Amino acid sequence: MNQQLIFTNHVAQKLDELVAGMNPANVVVLVDSNVREAVIPRMQEESETIAKATVVVVKPGENHKTTDTLSEIWDQLIKAGVTRKSLLINMGGGVITDMGGFAASTFKRGIPFINIPTTLLGAVDASVGGKTGVNFNGLKNQIGAFANAETVIVSSTFFKTLPDSELWSGYAEMIKHGAISSKDHFDQLLKYDLTGRDYDKMLTLMEENVQVKSNIVAADPTENGIRKALNLGHTVGHAYEELAMERHSPISHGYAVIFGLLTELILSKNKAGFPAEEVDRLAAYVRKHYGRFSFGTDEYDRLIALMRHDKKNYTADEINFTLLTNIGEVEIDRTATEDEIRGAFDEYLRILS
Amino acid sequence: MNQQLIFTNHVAQKLDELVAGMNPANVVVLVDSNVREAVIPRMQEESETIAKATVVVVKPGENHKTTDTLSEIWDQLIKAGVTRKSLLINMGGGVITDMGGFAASTFKRGIPFINIPTTLLGAVDASVGGKTGVNFNGLKNQIGAFANAETVIVSSTFFKTLPDSELWSGYAEMIKHGAISSKDHFDQLLKYDLTGRDYDKMLTLMEENVQVKSNIVAADPTENGIRKALNLGHTVGHAYEELAMERHSPISHGYAVIFGLLTELILSKNKAGFPAEEVDRLAAYVRKHYGRFSFGTDEYDRLIALMRHDKKNYTADEINFTLLTNIGEVEIDRTATEDEIRGAFDEYLRILS
Repeated sequence: MNQQLIFTNHVAQKLDELVAGMNPANVVVLVDSNVREAVIPRMQEESETIAKATVVVVKPGENHKTTDTLSEIWDQLIKAGVTRKSLLINMGGGVITDMGGFAASTFKRGIPFINIPTTLLGAVDASVGGKTGVNFNGLKNQIGAFANAETVIVSSTFFKTLPDSELWSGYAEMIKHGAISSKDHFDQLLKYDLTGRDYDKMLTLMEENVQVKSNIVAADPTENGIRKALNLGHTVGHAYEELAMERHSPISHGYAVIFGLLTELILSKNKAGFPAEEVDRLAAYVRKHYGRFSFGTDEYDRLIALMRHDKKNYTADEINFTLLTNIGEVEIDRTATEDEIRGAFDEYLRILS
Repeated sequence: MNQQLIFTNHVAQKLDELVAGMNPANVVVLVDSNVREAVIPRMQEESETIAKATVVVVKPGENHKTTDTLSEIWDQLIKAGVTRKSLLINMGGGVITDMGGFAASTFKRGIPFINIPTTLLGAVDASVGGKTGVNFNGLKNQIGAFANAETVIVSSTFFKTLPDSELWSGYAEMIKHGAISSKDHFDQLLKYDLTGRDYDKMLTLMEENVQVKSNIVAADPTENGIRKALNLGHTVGHAYEELAMERHSPISHGYAVIFGLLTELILSKNKAGFPAEEVDRLAAYVRKHYGRFSFGTDEYDRLIALMRHDKKNYTADEINFTLLTNIGEVEIDRTATEDEIRGAFDEYLRILS
């Protein structure tokens, strides 16, 4: 089942229309305390749905994306009298849409839910595609389910209060979608002036971009094949993210992804004929807008060990990658040896220096 | 997706063949401590799969069907190195197949699992049809998912150590399946001598019987329509079960269901033209093999209140029922008024007295 996507900068109005059509017995809105403060008061004025809804508030941040918070949410759903004829609206970043989607999909064996992402990263990635879940015993998204939102309402109006670094973090996933879709869209993304904050133009770009993910997910909802295309940049990216965590100077997910993407496109160049000039073009863009994530040659071993622990990479002595032969041309289930990966690290450090 | 059903009294051999075909990276068997003691040692001798598997043991009984036990199971799956290429085998009664199925369907967003029911009730009901879950805050199956086992291996060999009352409990669900399927099968069930314990004949009966449920589930996996046929007997049955619990003299689920079935067939006679002679025939059978669940007219109100709390009955002032116009002829989404229900209670008490 494909999920409905609505792109709008009139969220309250679209939401009310949508919910009127669904006619739920009652509505609960799940937010974290930041969104409760920044978004809910205005939404309660503008949207009849939100005005009448029960608001469930959880603590913000990845460290509260746990089974404990999940139990709190279930408990609140019971207290709100939620049934299979009710509706849950998840309004927030990826933590809220991941956790709220999982809470909904497991409450009374599944109640309908709508996602309204309030961050760029959430809008172009977490809120779309049916991956829901929570962390468990320190492992990311260890417990979860594939469960589609009935509808995702995507808007750029929520981004007005986001700091630039948050925008760039989400934009990294957009660039990845560009890289696996088409030269046209990739070009468009690298040329767009993100920090100019033209929100209507941003919404138009997001519409094309989210469709890339949505189409891939529709073709392979449970990640047995082509959905692995979305993993481009993430094998190395996750390792960078975890290394940064271990050093107690974390980098945001999107930044890790853009550095991972560059490294994996170097690997694509060396192993799959990906054009060198595209690597150079992306490297220039990354250097200008994201800077550089640095590490020493003595940390290569640790990075490779971290890649091996990634849940998608347990199959072989070699490590699995999604590679590109060109922009928009994807090869899933490729592998690389440790030496090839070390070589890509060398080039990555050199090209960004 | 329909789930594969294997009916066999050579469980170890069939299991090994099946698992050889699936070629999982590793295997975990989930059992409670009773099955650990009664079944696992022999299975370890007879089955290579079980001999090599990691055995995860939980405490037995409905009061351990909780999110806490669920977390223990997830934790053990992590320790056993389980991935999406592993296999979980749930071996036990309904508590184990419900909880193990839910654990599997939510671990890394879903790993494959096989159910091997060891009780008659589990074999003909809980293990088949994709309903998984745990209790939460004292509410039965409040948290769960629809998730099909890859395969259910149904055998009567496990029943040799079951007390008669356990057999009768499971047989109640079989009779309900008979009532919604065909006159032939219903007759066959009422004529079979259950306590003669002819296990091969029992397996043959179960094969036809479980197929009734399986076909209905395949037509409506998430209970939006015809699956409600399976709810026959359960609206009243659950209320009897809960009333007995409140009186601190619980009756088993199957006994509650057979008394509920009789009451709902009386309602069917009064409202939907169900034949009076079939009511009398079932009443005679119930009186002989199950006895009688008694209550006073002053408890009617409580029973009706309990029916209103049933999660499938929240829609209207009237109470929802599945009724029969004849054996094998089902009408879902019927309703009855409180007066009609009181009348059925009167008749139920009279006919069993």
